[in-house]
Amino acid sequence: MRLKKVKDAKEIIEKSNYLIKDPKNYIGKYKKFFSNKNIICVEIGTGKGDFLIEMAKKHPNINYIGIEKADSVLVRAIQKIDILELANIKFILMDALEINEIFKKEIETLYLNFSDPWPKNKHANRRLTSPLFLDKYDSIFKDKKEIRLKTDNRKFFEYSLIELVKKGYMISDLSLNLYDDFDKNSAQTEYETKFLKNGYNIYQLIAIKE
Amino acid sequence: MRLKKVKDAKEIIEKSNYLIKDPKNYIGKYKKFFSNKNIICVEIGTGKGDFLIEMAKKHPNINYIGIEKADSVLVRAIQKIDILELANIKFILMDALEINEIFKKEIETLYLNFSDPWPKNKHANRRLTSPLFLDKYDSIFKDKKEIRLKTDNRKFFEYSLIELVKKGYMISDLSLNLYDDFDKNSAQTEYETKFLKNGYNIYQLIAIKE
Repeated sequence: MRLKKVKDAKEIIEKSNYLIKDPKNYIGKYKKFFSNKNIICVEIGTGKGDFLIEMAKKHPNINYIGIEKADSVLVRAIQKIDILELANIKFILMDALEINEIFKKEIETLYLNFSDPWPKNKHANRRLTSPLFLDKYDSIFKDKKEIRLKTDNRKFFEYSLIELVKKGYMISDLSLNLYDDFDKNSAQTEYETKFLKNGYNIYQLIAIKE
Repeated sequence: MRLKKVKDAKEIIEKSNYLIKDPKNYIGKYKKFFSNKNIICVEIGTGKGDFLIEMAKKHPNINYIGIEKADSVLVRAIQKIDILELANIKFILMDALEINEIFKKEIETLYLNFSDPWPKNKHANRRLTSPLFLDKYDSIFKDKKEIRLKTDNRKFFEYSLIELVKKGYMISDLSLNLYDDFDKNSAQTEYETKFLKNGYNIYQLIAIKE
């Protein structure tokens, strides 16, 4: 999706109360941002924030943190949330490669929605389900590890399934055509809404490691 | 697929040199049927035999055994093979539930092609990838376990993936749209040929347990 360049994106983001600045300072201590003991779920590649904002509205007793590396995209999420005033959502502007340096044993569920498939083999390590990333995720989860992945990219989905299983994950749920099985109550990303409208195939899996 | 009833199907099958009679007598000794030391691969639900006959023609150095419980279907395979005179193929008329009573540490690869999906949950145990069957397969393989599965049934494929992983299988290869990835050199079943012609989606996986 192409976005119009938002002027002063970085400045707008940094002024927002919804941004966690210097996240490395809070490793193991993210509860402090929410003034409650509720579980914390994270989305990597949160984009314009539609999925996470929808989830935060629907589940006020769950805390959500969205990670996004592109300020030109994250600024859209920040602009939306600034109007809504939700207490259970925060954003972090950073590259997910550093995720194991900012969270430690505190995440319940990791969401990967319509991640960049990096189709070329030479870029396989950049996929958010590559062994490189899966190893990093190991230390961020509180108890059992739970990754929920949605994508419209078949090759990325096949790759993700194979790699997750290699790393010891069980597949607790799987849909190879979410449009058919669709649960009207679950939150949709902005991509998903568009894809569903056009009848595209969406793949979903829930992977769990005890 | 509906078949015209073949008169005396059972009689025709039992007269054929390609049928292994009283298979329980040969547990651990199937090599004797092929007069060579080549590996043995098995297909459960071999139907009219198209896949296995094609494989046997293409790979003369591999031995193939097809298991089928319906004599009205197996008779078609027998009629085809009687004309061809292939030395590396045999059939067994039986229910796959007894597979662990007829093979012991002698199978290289197990093929499950377009197996009955048994869509109702109350019949889940009858699916060829149910825990009941997967446990039975454990003792039939020679070294590492290798199951190659193809189906056009999405729900059966999702179920199979989840159950195989639960039983400790790795996914060594996966295609959620075989039509796109199609290897023109591999053997097609009679179902597959028809499905491909009509542009249906075919799923494939290769599962391996060391």
